Order: sequence, then structure tokens, then C-alpha cells
Amino acid sequence: MQQQRSINGPEPLRDPATLRRLLSPRSVAIVGVSADPIGFGARSIGNMRGFAGPVWAVNPKYAGQELHGFPCYGSIAELPEAPDCALLALPRQGIMPAVEACIEKGAGGIIAFASGYGETGLAERIAEEEALRDRCRAAGLPLVGVNCLGIVDHVLKAGVTFMPEYARLTAPAGGVAITSQSGALGYALMQAAERGFAVCHMTTAGNATDLDVCDLAAYQLSMPECRAVALAVEGLRDGRRIALLGEAARKAGKPIVVLKLGRGEAGAAAAVSHTGSLAGSAAAWSAAFKRAGMVEVEDFDALLETAGLFAKVGKPKAKGVAIVTASGGAGIMAADHAEALDLPMPQPSADAKAVLEAAIPDFGAPRNPCDLTAQAASDPTSFGKCVLAMAADPQYGVIVYPQVYSHHQTTTGRIQEIANLTERAGKPIIVAWIPEQLEGPGAAAADASPVVPLFRSMRRLMKGIKLWQAYHDRQEEAPPTPPPGLEEAIAALPGKGAVLTEAEAKALFAKVGVPVVEERRAATADAAAEQATALGFPVVLKLDSPDIAHKTEVGGVRLHLADADAVRGAFGAIMSSAKAHAPTARLDGVLVQRMAQKGVELILGARRDPQFGAMVLVGTGGVQAELWRDVALDLAPVTPERAEAMLRSLQGFPLLDGFRGSPKADVAAVAKAVSAFSVLAAEAGERLQEAEVNPLIAGPWGCLAVDGLVKCG
Amino acid sequence: MQQQRSINGPEPLRDPATLRRLLSPRSVAIVGVSADPIGFGARSIGNMRGFAGPVWAVNPKYAGQELHGFPCYGSIAELPEAPDCALLALPRQGIMPAVEACIEKGAGGIIAFASGYGETGLAERIAEEEALRDRCRAAGLPLVGVNCLGIVDHVLKAGVTFMPEYARLTAPAGGVAITSQSGALGYALMQAAERGFAVCHMTTAGNATDLDVCDLAAYQLSMPECRAVALAVEGLRDGRRIALLGEAARKAGKPIVVLKLGRGEAGAAAAVSHTGSLAGSAAAWSAAFKRAGMVEVEDFDALLETAGLFAKVGKPKAKGVAIVTASGGAGIMAADHAEALDLPMPQPSADAKAVLEAAIPDFGAPRNPCDLTAQAASDPTSFGKCVLAMAADPQYGVIVYPQVYSHHQTTTGRIQEIANLTERAGKPIIVAWIPEQLEGPGAAAADASPVVPLFRSMRRLMKGIKLWQAYHDRQEEAPPTPPPGLEEAIAALPGKGAVLTEAEAKALFAKVGVPVVEERRAATADAAAEQATALGFPVVLKLDSPDIAHKTEVGGVRLHLADADAVRGAFGAIMSSAKAHAPTARLDGVLVQRMAQKGVELILGARRDPQFGAMVLVGTGGVQAELWRDVALDLAPVTPERAEAMLRSLQGFPLLDGFRGSPKADVAAVAKAVSAFSVLAAEAGERLQEAEVNPLIAGPWGCLAVDGLVKCG
Repeated sequence: MQQQRSINGPEPLRDPATLRRLLSPRSVAIVGVSADPIGFGARSIGNMRGFAGPVWAVNPKYAGQELHGFPCYGSIAELPEAPDCALLALPRQGIMPAVEACIEKGAGGIIAFASGYGETGLAERIAEEEALRDRCRAAGLPLVGVNCLGIVDHVLKAGVTFMPEYARLTAPAGGVAITSQSGALGYALMQAAERGFAVCHMTTAGNATDLDVCDLAAYQLSMPECRAVALAVEGLRDGRRIALLGEAARKAGKPIVVLKLGRGEAGAAAAVSHTGSLAGSAAAWSAAFKRAGMVEVEDFDALLETAGLFAKVGKPKAKGVAIVTASGGAGIMAADHAEALDLPMPQPSADAKAVLEAAIPDFGAPRNPCDLTAQAASDPTSFGKCVLAMAADPQYGVIVYPQVYSHHQTTTGRIQEIANLTERAGKPIIVAWIPEQLEGPGAAAADASPVVPLFRSMRRLMKGIKLWQAYHDRQEEAPPTPPPGLEEAIAALPGKGAVLTEAEAKALFAKVGVPVVEERRAATADAAAEQATALGFPVVLKLDSPDIAHKTEVGGVRLHLADADAVRGAFGAIMSSAKAHAPTARLDGVLVQRMAQKGVELILGARRDPQFGAMVLVGTGGVQAELWRDVALDLAPVTPERAEAMLRSLQGFPLLDGFRGSPKADVAAVAKAVSAFSVLAAEAGERLQEAEVNPLIAGPWGCLAVDGLVKCG
Repeated sequence: MQQQRSINGPEPLRDPATLRRLLSPRSVAIVGVSADPIGFGARSIGNMRGFAGPVWAVNPKYAGQELHGFPCYGSIAELPEAPDCALLALPRQGIMPAVEACIEKGAGGIIAFASGYGETGLAERIAEEEALRDRCRAAGLPLVGVNCLGIVDHVLKAGVTFMPEYARLTAPAGGVAITSQSGALGYALMQAAERGFAVCHMTTAGNATDLDVCDLAAYQLSMPECRAVALAVEGLRDGRRIALLGEAARKAGKPIVVLKLGRGEAGAAAAVSHTGSLAGSAAAWSAAFKRAGMVEVEDFDALLETAGLFAKVGKPKAKGVAIVTASGGAGIMAADHAEALDLPMPQPSADAKAVLEAAIPDFGAPRNPCDLTAQAASDPTSFGKCVLAMAADPQYGVIVYPQVYSHHQTTTGRIQEIANLTERAGKPIIVAWIPEQLEGPGAAAADASPVVPLFRSMRRLMKGIKLWQAYHDRQEEAPPTPPPGLEEAIAALPGKGAVLTEAEAKALFAKVGVPVVEERRAATADAAAEQATALGFPVVLKLDSPDIAHKTEVGGVRLHLADADAVRGAFGAIMSSAKAHAPTARLDGVLVQRMAQKGVELILGARRDPQFGAMVLVGTGGVQAELWRDVALDLAPVTPERAEAMLRSLQGFPLLDGFRGSPKADVAAVAKAVSAFSVLAAEAGERLQEAEVNPLIAGPWGCLAVDGLVKCG
């Protein structure tokens, strides 16, 4: 199976070494620079003024002259040497000839702003974009764009973008790299460097004709300056590349903080209330990010702040959150948000409490949250004392400090003090920036600092801590091993669109390791009675017909049959009802099933996501399942450990865990069944379009699939 | 009942006219100014430099001299005239003598920074604070504080606060007034004026010794400059003042946007899983804000932005949201957040679409969201054309414009263009500020504008639109009328701590208009059989004992009794089981009830909130009620209309509305019962500590209370 997967697997990420000339260039040519200072080329070359290497303009009209202070050449061929990066500031029509010239010259790669390709939806433009990709790939000339906004290497001060005023981005190069599919959003993030936030690199993918956000982010991971990547993605040609990028990030030991844009339609789809669509594709993206070890945020505003946090802090030493503040109100605000996320806020130990009590006036609070009150201003040493006392308490992994007011004389100094304290404390001190003066003095000092994370929202700050703890809690797991015989079982599946009978579906599930209810086939009333007697009463009779999927609707199910006579009567009733409803259907007889023991009803499902392939879903079942929509979704396959985590994430999990005195179900057995079912979905790949067990009944005795459905793909 | 209510009702809000001298003073005395420029008094007087009226320092040491540029007097008595506002920048020990002097002099009111009063929790300090309140009130001298941070009248440029650098708050006075219990958080909000946000007034309540946030906000409502109030509250001595403030806001036609701090512990309490505490007190605050017509936000960061929105826009003309952008990515982001809140985003009508198609290039999107692309920069008229075309479409009530990049040359002009377009469009154009350059050029122009709302978060922006629509959808309702005989029924309730028997509780519910299951008492087995025959089988038998509250636990309930013999047997079984479990209990016999018809189980509850009094709660019932915690809570009483809205807000509402083909319940009958129950709770006041109907069974035939509990208060 491994072999088959790699044949159909995602295209590997581009080797970062092959992108270094393009994305961290030592020489840059800007092709298509006019004298007009607001032209795209002119604006781009203007952004190269701080760059140390050679920068060449290309325009036959000005060959041999200077243009905007840079030497101009008549053509790419005439450049003094091969440029590492050739920025094509040309309309669509000029791109292909320039590409040929770049190939000829030996350029390290190209960036193309031009729009009007595949994004128009016109067939000839789609073909034109494909031809461009094919040519670049054949020649080994990597391409950023088309329809992009360029890149910035802020270490090299290379502003290879038409966005105006790169010179205003005066923040030092720092640990965060930005990759965005949308050019405008990428540069919106990059403007953080204008107010002081330390960024090392930015790339925009645009149409991702050649390089997509995964290739670009993987390059940034390879930069020594990069400590975390902020990634904004709308879609990918192949969602499975997320897993490859996650693997690259894991190897580099650098977190990726990601925002998915375009969740909306998926959200709407998720509202459709039948089981198969309980799992919208936004949920699939989230599952893929989680599996890839990425840190997902839900708001654009959280993206850079959270990446900043990850770039600045190490591994948490404990789960507890200590809050140290000079404002009671800000302490309450911090506690509200921490508690809403179940972040523990233990009270300080005796040693820490003694320090707090000595340092804090009687109208303050020597506890957690610790309120120094406005008197902290009178004793400038009290803040450091209290922070270090809390940091020395092994219960706490992080100190949160709300900076309530931005003061021109003191706040920058306070941030510098926090940077020093962070080193002494050996634990992060995160600043919650409360003032409405958003860039007020002090904020820039934190944003530029390599060690002081700053959030402009208490909610986002606490969520950041939660994500940080979860990131370091994640476990590497080997994928589950397919059971023997699975390959043949999958090979034996009928063709696309075929639907297995209940008996066939359950036989398949049983083969892969999902316990199914004991059942026998019977073609006559007497045979049914005989089988029922052998199984033990009470039993259920279900119509067995390859032509009827919805048995209940034709009167094809009878429950609670207590003896042989009841079984004979039910057989007759089922057959005559089925004949009346579906005169032409083949009727093979009935399935006789032992009534399942009492237990909790769950739903188990698998479906294919167009981006990520096989997904597995488990949820609270029963007649009200649609109402509560209580489901957990993950990429298939899941290990039993991961399956158990899915079960525990359900709001209805207490039903399995002794709810109101009921016996506890064998959760490990349920998790094993979910895992086995997910292995089937993963290994079957496109052969399996949809599979469902509804209900899966769970109890202290284990679990049993009572009904089953398989649609082949 | 009305009379009784006003006797026990909340203290009325202070008449704003009596606070004008204090809160919008024409003369200010700062008592306790030292030569030290960083003293509280010195910093405060420094903040008065832009004020047009007289400002006097008071300090006997510098009498007759100038202090920090202001004339200094030896005592309050020696001031040239009575100050409108006397700011006491004195320690606690100096407050009372200064108060006496202010009373003597005829001051308009006082502000006291001093800490160390009731907030210490020390009995003598609590008493000291009470004495201060009593003296001020007796003398008609209103007091802001103690333990506060002062006030700002930004129209008069009166910075009556020790916060440094009020002179830096250069924004023009505008439509938003700020009231905060926490001084530090109030001034954190006020710093918006340092980056350009237009605020007219700020007050901080501190300990609210005399004036609380409701009095202070009510004053601001009376200011002609004020168009909306941003209110941050932690707690009140009497939560019912929220309703009074809401009434004042309604009369003034000015919205109050409110944030409740200190939700955390309440959130934890809400997690406790027995019915009575399904309603935590954070939920009670939310219900009170809603009833008062206030606009509640959940984040500090949303408070000022949302108040700014309300200060700048009128009534929505339609529900549809139009998005006009130059960035496809920002359009997707806007659509994601709008869709998550169910805000409609209809496609443009033919007229609007024709304008968009003419103005937008082929790689843009002439739809909603409308993407002008970066080409919008090349045709400066296209933006205005598209905005006006969308605004002219009657489907849309608001235009959202994401400003993606903050450009020094053009963005301020764009905001001015939006201000002009707003007037022509007759509909609000709200700016979503996307750049990470948070105060970048352009932002200040919107923040200072009286017509252009700006949000620095797409989530908060869309939530703001949702709140704006809901605010204008709210209805005034007359409270429901108590039924005849209710007063006597309440008068007949036993004393504090008494628990009614099931029969007594249901008799009470029946009297107020809640339908209850038909039942008869029977003291013997034969009488029970006779009553059952009269009622019609099947029946239920329940133990009738004033000493046993939990009947099930003593074997005191038997269901599904199909005939007279079964009833006789059950009677004997109940009696012997009860005797065995509770040998000393009085056993009055049994209640014989007709089995309720099939239906949907609901829970109906009432309890007293320490801040808001009687609350009513309705939720999905049944054995899994604790699991899904699906409840709606409101202040009692509720009208049947409001009760129906509560029912419709339940996730389980489909159960009443034909879920999976089941018959629809008579929702109006349920709403009527909920309303009647809530009237009982409201009118009984403190006489009723807790009441519950569990279950209330609802069906097409109406609804029936099957069990009932009343604890007297």
C-alpha cells in the first residue's frame, strides 16, 4: 500500500536550496521599469534602495542610462551577469519572452506580477498559465506568481514588490516569516514592520502557477533567521501538501501558525443535517492543520501576534498562568479569558505569596491575579520582585502582564525591564497591550524584541497560550497498521457507484476489525425461526435485498421478536410489505440478528474530502443526532489513541463515561473500532466514496456495529 | 403590586442636572497640589492647561503663590468662589475634613482618588466609606470615587485626572462617552483620543461610594455632544439600576454599549450541572443588558469600536451587507465572518451589477463581495461608482470596505472620500482596517470622523453590524399582567426555607395559569383505584408526603398502571417502601395522575439572582438535559412573545417544531405557560427562592406540568 500511496501522493515540496537564489537573492533585475515613478517596475526598483547587491533595470528605451538611480540595460541578455532574481514587472503578454531570456541567461528564478491568467476562468488563459508553468519547470526556473505582489527579504533589505514605501518598514529583521496566498493580505501583515514588528521574510503566492504557499513557507523554514512562519492560505491544488509542510516544520523545529481564508461556504455546508455532511470542509482543513502539527488561528488579527509568540518562547515548563498587573480591572479581564479557555490559574505557593505580601499595599491583591495597584509606580522595584517570585513558583509556565496605559516617559523602559526579567525568570512574560493607543510608546519595543511577546487583545493572548501549550503537547504517532487481508477485501469491492447490502457492508467492517452484531441469513420463515433460536431471543429481522437500501421505508425491519412464532410472523409481514412497496426488487430473504445489548448509540462515518482524501467522523448518535450535531472529525487513518481523543472531545462523551449512574462503556474498544474503520477508509482511498455505521452501540461489554452502509467510488 | 415594587425597587438614577457642575465644570479646584511635579495633584493640575475656566490649586504651604502655573490658595474656604468641581488629591485621612470644607463653600461636587476604603475588606474602612457617602448625600454633594482615577470632559478640555499627558489627547471631541468602573481601564480607553478617536467625556467610578457607573453614564447621555456611551462594569450594589439606565438611554435615543468584566467565576458556576445553576450569573447580566436595550460586547477591544459605530450610524434601511474591496483575500475574509453570523450577503440587482461590470476588469469580481482588484488604483473613480451603485440597491443596509494597506499618500484621502460618499449614499460605509500598521495614515481620519466607523478586526466589524441590526429590531413591550388571585396565593406561601409538596406546588402553578396534569389524592388503596378509574387508565401513582421531597429515592413513584388491580398493588408497594426508607415521615397517601400524553420534555425554572432578582429559565429536558445544557434565561416576568423567543433560541427547538416528522407542539401554549410561570416568580419576589417544573411536557395538544417544586424564600 505504501508504494501505491507514493504514486498517488502529493507533489513533494521544492527543495529550499533550489529557491535560495530567487527568494534571498544577491542580485536582482527588474524587467520593465519605465520613467514613470508610479509604474509597477519603478515602484519595485525604488524598494531596492537599501539592498547591498547589484540591482539592474531592464528597458530597451533607457539602455545605458540610469533609471531611478539604477543602471538600465536594453535586455535580459545584456545584463552584466545572470540575476539571482528576475522580477518581471510586465503585462501578461510580455511574460513568456522574458522567461525564455531568463532561461537563456541562467537567472535563479522569476517573480511575475501579471494578472489575467487562470483567475479569469477563461479556458485560453488557463492554458496560457499551464504553458508558463510547464516551461518554467522544464527549464528549472522557479516562479513566484503569477498575479502576486512579490517578496521581501527583510534580512537583505530586498523589497522585491511594487507595494510603495518599503523604506518605511524600519523594524529590524526578526524571527517571523510571512507567507500569504493573497498579495494584499501578505503586505498588510508586512506593514507590521512599519510600526516596529520584527519580520525576516515575506512571500506572496498569487495564482501559485509554480510555487505554492507550501513551497514558499518551506523555504522560509530553511532561513536561519526564521523562528516561526505566519501562513495565510485560501486553497491548494492538493491539500495533502499541508502534511509535507508540517513535516518540514517538525524537522526544522519551527512552528507554523496558519489562517484558512474562505471557510464560509464550508460552514454553510456543515449545517446540512444528514450525517455525511456533518463534516464540512473547513473542518477538514482544521483536521489537516492539526495533523500536520500546525497552529491554527481563526482571525487575521491573531496571525502575526501568535506567530510572534511562537518565535519568542521555548517549551512551557508548567501549565499554570500567573497574572501580574497594576490594574485590578485588567486582572479580572485576564482571569475571565483564561478561565473561559480552562487555563489553570493556581494560587501562589507560600514562598511566592510571602514576596507578594511584602511588596503589595493593603488595597492590592497578593494573589493570582496579582494586583500591584497604581502604587507600583511609587516603588519601581516591586514589579520585578513580584514577577520573579511568581516565575520561581514551579506551578507557573508563563507570566501575563497587562500594560494598561502607554506612557511616553516610562513604558518603553518597562518593556526593556521585562526583556531583562524574562532572561532571569527563564519563563516567558507576555504583554497584554490594553491601551487604545495601539502603537503607543512601548509597543514597538516589544514588537521588535526577540523575547517579549505582545498581544493587543486579551482573548487572543490567552488563546495563544492555549495553542502554545497544545503545540508542545502534541505527540508523534506511527500510523496504524492495516490488518492482514485488507488489501484483498478492498480489491474485491465492486465498481464506482455500487452500494453494498447491509450484510456485505458489515462483513467488510468485521474483516477490518470493527465488531459487528451477530447475524445469519434466512431465505424462509422456518429458516429464520431456526436461526433465531440458534442465536437466542430476542432478535431483529431485516429485509435482505440488493435492490433496497432504505429497508425501514418498505417495512423491512422488525424489532423485539421474542420467540419462533413471532419470527415466522415477522418474516411474512416483511416479505409482503416489501413486495407491495417494490414489486420488481430481488428479495433474498432476511437477516436475523440478535438484539444488541443496551448501550449508547454512536455514529461512525467516513467520506472523501476533495482536498485531503479519506476523513473519519465519530459522533453522538440516536434519534436526536441531527439536533445536537456533536461530531469529531479527523483525517483517516487515526490511531486508537487519536480515536479516543476524538471520543473524549464529544460533548456527549459523558454518555460513555457513566452519565447519571449508567455503566461506563468500554471506551478503548470503541476507539479500536473507530481506528480500524478509519484504516479501511484510508487504505481504500478513492475506491470507497462513503461508509457509515449507524448505530455503533457501545457498552461495558464493548461495541457493535448494528447497521452499515458502503458506497463505492 | 406596583406600589410594593417601588418600595423595594432600586435607588433612582441621580438627576443629571445635579451632576453638571461636577462632571462638566466651569471652575475646578485641585486640593492637595505639591511642588513635586509627579505628585497626583501636580499631575492633575497639569492636565487642566487647556481648560478655559478658572483652575485653583489648594495647599497652605504655597498660599498666595503660583503652583505649576496656577494660583494657589491656603484652603478651600479661601478660594475666590465655590468651585464647580473640587478634586481631592489627598490621602484617605484628608478626605473628610476637605468634604466638610467643600460643603461649607458650596462646591458642585467632589472627586476623590484616595484608596484604602472598603476595597481593603476591613470593617473599619468599610464603615469609614459609608460615613463618607452618608455625609456627601446628606449635604447634596455628589462624589466621584473613592479609589478612582478622575474624569475628563473633553469638550471643555478638563482633564480632571492624575493620568499623565492629557495634553497629548489631541483628537477632537466626538460622539462617544466612556464610563468605566476600573479607573485604569477607563483611561486605557481614553487613550484612543491620543491616536485620534473622537471622545466627548470619560468618567471612572472606582468604589462608587456615591455615584455608580449608572449615574455617571446617565449624565453622559444628557450631554448634547454624546451620541453613544461605552460602559465597562464589574459589579453594582443593585443590578436593577441597569434597567433604569437602559430606560434613560431609550428616552435619550442614545445606545449604550456595555462590557461586563468578571464573568469568570460565574462561568464556572454555570458548569455545575443541576438545573438551578444552569443559569450562571454572567448569563443574568447578559439578560439584564438585553432587557435594558443595551448592546453587550464580549471583548474590551470591541467596546470603543462598537460604541463608535453606534455613534456614527442611524437606523439600518435593510439587512443585506455589501462588501466592496480592492483585495480578493479581504473580500473572502469579510464573507467568512459575515456568513458565520448569518448576515445576508445578497448578490447585486441588475442595475448595480451593470455598474460593477463596467467598472471592474475581467480578473476582478463584479458581484458581492465586489473585488475591484489592485486596478482600482489606476481608475480613481471606480471605487466611488461601485460603492454608490451598491448603496443604491435596496437590498443593502450597509457597505463594508476593507482598507488593506495604509498608504501615506492616499489613505487619508480615501477616508475623506468615504465620508463624502456616505452622505451621498445615505447608508453607512464601515471601514475594516486590515493593515498591521494599526495607527497608519488614514485610521486617524476615520476615528475622528463623525460618520466613518472603523474596526480593526473583521470579526468585530461583522459582530458590530449584527448588534446594530438587533438593537434596532428590539421591541418595547408592556410587562404581562398578573392573574387575579395571585397576590393572595403568594401571601399564603409558607415561610422562608419551606418546601411545598408536589401537589401544593402544582396547585400553585395551576392557579397562575400553568396547565398541570390532572391528579387526585387518595389515602387508601381502594380510593386510589377508584380515582384512577375515574381519571382513565393508564395512571401514575406518586407518594404524597409533606416530609419526603425526593419521592423516587424512596420507591414512591409507579408508572404505567393499566388497571385497578395494578393501582391497588402499587399503592401497597409505595407505602411499604416509604415506611421502610423513612419510618418517621408522615404519609398522606398517594397522588393519582393520568399518564401524560406523549410529547417533548422541557424544563421550566425560576430562581433569584442576587443582583437582578427573579429569573426564568426554560430548556430542553429529558434525561440528557444536563449533557446538552440547552437553556434560555431571562429576567422575570417575560411576555408570551418573549417566552416564545426564548423557546426558539433553544438548540432543541426543532423538537417542538416537527423534528423528523413528529407532530408540531403548540408553541404558543408553551410560551403562555412560561410567561405565567415567570409572572409568579416576579410577583412573589423574595418569597419564592426557587421553583421548577420538570418535566413540562409539550405536544400538539398543549403542555402540562407533570412534576413541580417550590422552595420558599
